[in-house]
Amino acid sequence: MALKVNSPMPESLAERPLNSQTDLQRIAIIDVGSNSFRLIVMTYRQGYCFQLTDEVRETVRLVKGLGAAGKLSREAMAHAIEVMRMYAAFCRASNIQDIIAVATSAVREAANRLKFLSRVQRETGISVRLLSSEEEAYYGYLAAVNSTTLRNGFVIDLGGGSLEITRVADRLPCETVSLTLGAVRATEEWLPNIPPSKEQIARFRKHIREQLAPLKWFKLQGTWQLVGQGGSLRNLARVAQKQSNYPLDELHGYELAAADVRKIAKQLESMTLDERLRMNGMKPDRADIALAAAIVIEECLRHAGAETMLVCSQGLREGLFYERFFNGGRTSDAPPMFENVREASVINVAHLYNFQERHARHVAHLSLSMFDQLAALENDPARFSAAERELLWAACMLHDIGMSIDYNDHHRHSYYLILNSGLPGFTHRELALIGLAAKYHRKGVPSTAEIGAVLQPSDQARLLRMTALLRLAEQLDRSRDGAVSDVRLEPCEDGYLLVPISTADISVAIWSAQLHTEIFRSAFGKALTIAYGSAS
Amino acid sequence: MALKVNSPMPESLAERPLNSQTDLQRIAIIDVGSNSFRLIVMTYRQGYCFQLTDEVRETVRLVKGLGAAGKLSREAMAHAIEVMRMYAAFCRASNIQDIIAVATSAVREAANRLKFLSRVQRETGISVRLLSSEEEAYYGYLAAVNSTTLRNGFVIDLGGGSLEITRVADRLPCETVSLTLGAVRATEEWLPNIPPSKEQIARFRKHIREQLAPLKWFKLQGTWQLVGQGGSLRNLARVAQKQSNYPLDELHGYELAAADVRKIAKQLESMTLDERLRMNGMKPDRADIALAAAIVIEECLRHAGAETMLVCSQGLREGLFYERFFNGGRTSDAPPMFENVREASVINVAHLYNFQERHARHVAHLSLSMFDQLAALENDPARFSAAERELLWAACMLHDIGMSIDYNDHHRHSYYLILNSGLPGFTHRELALIGLAAKYHRKGVPSTAEIGAVLQPSDQARLLRMTALLRLAEQLDRSRDGAVSDVRLEPCEDGYLLVPISTADISVAIWSAQLHTEIFRSAFGKALTIAYGSAS
Repeated sequence: MALKVNSPMPESLAERPLNSQTDLQRIAIIDVGSNSFRLIVMTYRQGYCFQLTDEVRETVRLVKGLGAAGKLSREAMAHAIEVMRMYAAFCRASNIQDIIAVATSAVREAANRLKFLSRVQRETGISVRLLSSEEEAYYGYLAAVNSTTLRNGFVIDLGGGSLEITRVADRLPCETVSLTLGAVRATEEWLPNIPPSKEQIARFRKHIREQLAPLKWFKLQGTWQLVGQGGSLRNLARVAQKQSNYPLDELHGYELAAADVRKIAKQLESMTLDERLRMNGMKPDRADIALAAAIVIEECLRHAGAETMLVCSQGLREGLFYERFFNGGRTSDAPPMFENVREASVINVAHLYNFQERHARHVAHLSLSMFDQLAALENDPARFSAAERELLWAACMLHDIGMSIDYNDHHRHSYYLILNSGLPGFTHRELALIGLAAKYHRKGVPSTAEIGAVLQPSDQARLLRMTALLRLAEQLDRSRDGAVSDVRLEPCEDGYLLVPISTADISVAIWSAQLHTEIFRSAFGKALTIAYGSAS
Repeated sequence: MALKVNSPMPESLAERPLNSQTDLQRIAIIDVGSNSFRLIVMTYRQGYCFQLTDEVRETVRLVKGLGAAGKLSREAMAHAIEVMRMYAAFCRASNIQDIIAVATSAVREAANRLKFLSRVQRETGISVRLLSSEEEAYYGYLAAVNSTTLRNGFVIDLGGGSLEITRVADRLPCETVSLTLGAVRATEEWLPNIPPSKEQIARFRKHIREQLAPLKWFKLQGTWQLVGQGGSLRNLARVAQKQSNYPLDELHGYELAAADVRKIAKQLESMTLDERLRMNGMKPDRADIALAAAIVIEECLRHAGAETMLVCSQGLREGLFYERFFNGGRTSDAPPMFENVREASVINVAHLYNFQERHARHVAHLSLSMFDQLAALENDPARFSAAERELLWAACMLHDIGMSIDYNDHHRHSYYLILNSGLPGFTHRELALIGLAAKYHRKGVPSTAEIGAVLQPSDQARLLRMTALLRLAEQLDRSRDGAVSDVRLEPCEDGYLLVPISTADISVAIWSAQLHTEIFRSAFGKALTIAYGSAS
């Protein structure tokens, strides 16, 4: 199965892992931002798989002084040119010819923007595309819709210069607005002192509310989601994770609670810069703008009526990348996006780690066959939901990726790789379940101990069921040749009889599966007997 | 650099990672052991790199009853044939044609060995080579000498049927002896009850001492080492690790203390089987033979006068593999072995994880250049030892292997891969230092917290020095193009001036290195200033 996307893409790509070094393309994407400049390198096989492979970042604060003077300062411009010259040297040295560079709010609003852009072109050879606020919002939206399950709701991108809010309906962008509430800009204009006075804070909040008030469409409804982007939001989310001893390192997919944003904003209000710098999780070069960022996010959540914000660690740069990944950079009528983000995430990670596709898909086939037969026989929809079925599929697809590290302990390596991959589109709870099922696919009693904090009470039993079916399927394809083409589950006296269907010698499969019937009994409360096989 | 070996090997292999699927060979090695049968699959590029890629194990207890009857029992033989048939099916299904199968002590000593071997051949198609006790000892020795730094001392291989002891002088095998003290056999003959009586234990110890007494050459001298092998030893070492909350998972390279062996043997003496099974780290199918194994090992250590035994998790199977890996299976006059096991381990792991060879070697070159210049300038041999230089080299070679997992957090992934690779030939302390230097090669203050228990008090300062030089070298090759060909360190007013030598544009290197001078001051107590470069 290739990735399904809405826009044209290469068909029927064979199994060609990313690190086999053939047909690989590399692109450098440079974000000439209002707070920081960032260069990322993406390595990819068009429409097949991709991975971030390098990153350079420098805090430039291009927007500094812009609000007062209306143009980029001499110092900021000099610093910007120096960094861009360095990025150009980096691309030359790394032999990357394909470069996309874009500028956003700070450059857009500067009276001397043309002078700046032509200087960059002349002195570094890099041609920078100036994005309109609509385009800036669009690429953020594109990143969100390709890395989360956002269908209806909002994407909020808080940068150094501006704040973009986009309404998304049925995965397509509708209304969008750009406000000059970026974290650097707002700090300079409204909260120049650390700590600021109570009056300064009150005036700032009043200003934000006046800006948001006209946005009648920016109100959450029903199951709508609110997705947030930007470095200042990531910084805030990291502080929140540290304060709650969150068990995962992953930021993408983190549900940042409005209550935590309020609490942290309150803490920041009275802190000195030194105190901010000592906060666990605080990025040093974001400490000075952290309060303005927290207040803007708090007010957005309040206005929208949201209890949480889903952190999306992708943004503008990834949005630009997706356009290239799907379309080769051509614009298209419909936004280029994965048909199913969760499925695409699993397939991408599987491709990155050279999964043995035939075996993984066969294990998924056998597991889901047992799942579906049990669902029909047990007649208990709560235990056989579509959601659980999808998690089982993902665990089957990824259970062996740890073999790319080492055969020894590869179950543990799969767990490590899955948790670190983040699997965009899955919640952290789902990520943990997929990782844990892979971790226990060979042996052991599944334990959720280390990361239990992201799970629900019913997940221990769910994990046991997933693990039991994955482990049995793994054993039925122990010799990785698909000899057991399917299985039949038949009720018998004390439980179920599992009949492997095959026309080949399946002694390895039967011997292997017989060693793992006990976990089935623990998971489903019934005995399992492995029969000697049937040819139909 | 290719692996240096004493025997002929392919020259000048280009950079061809193991998982690029070209020129790969696979071999199945089947060990028809006295306690368990084990099939391993090794995937390798001859003389270049190798990795275990599959393993199947079944406890058969072939030796059971042999002592009394002098031949393999009907049940054991039937079970053995069934397992071998399964292994044959596994190889067919996995499309592995290259199979080496060997039998050891149990078959060797059975009166009906020819009948057994011909039945296996006839009923499974697998031709099993019966090893003499000398050959059995030789392949264990070959594994030890290729995975540890053993130069002079002993290799002790405790199997299910026999115990082999080999004296090693200047890396070559000398005296060897095989005693029928294997863990299954000894349990059956001397300790059939659980728990055994005090008299049974005393008689067993007396018997072992009588067996060892004639071995005048089996006494440790000076810096000689004692290396131990076999599943029962691994089991014992795992229990010892659990009892001491050992911070690493790795068994290979673990220094098992004689005091711990005595303590665990003492605990086992009075335990029921259930109590043994509940011991943390105990393998269920080794619980019944664990006491006999512990006593044999304890008596060997006592006789040899050793305080510790170095656990070698490789053995017979790997020894057979090395013969194939180096010689393509041809026998040679000199035992095939790595010239330098530590160097070979680093290169093997680097190849397995697609290291960017040019960059890694250049970082090593720059780091060691700084190290050597500092050694000359500082005149402090304790801080600039050959041992520390070697660890720095290894950390440089492996610092980026985590990129095979993900660019994000690749320093942390490198640490994970290094610690899991085990790096045969390095002690666990050295492994931890190499891993930690890689972990902090980009940022952060090196902390030894998690695995501090394997380190020495002086290692915190050592780690800081290694990290500082690695990190500076990494920054000097930030664009991975070798533009900074070397560096010159010159004493200056408040410390050192670092002069990058280059004829190219090195703005990226200078900009990057300037951000990391503080760690140099922490490590060496002197300021570092980065100069703008020199052409010579």
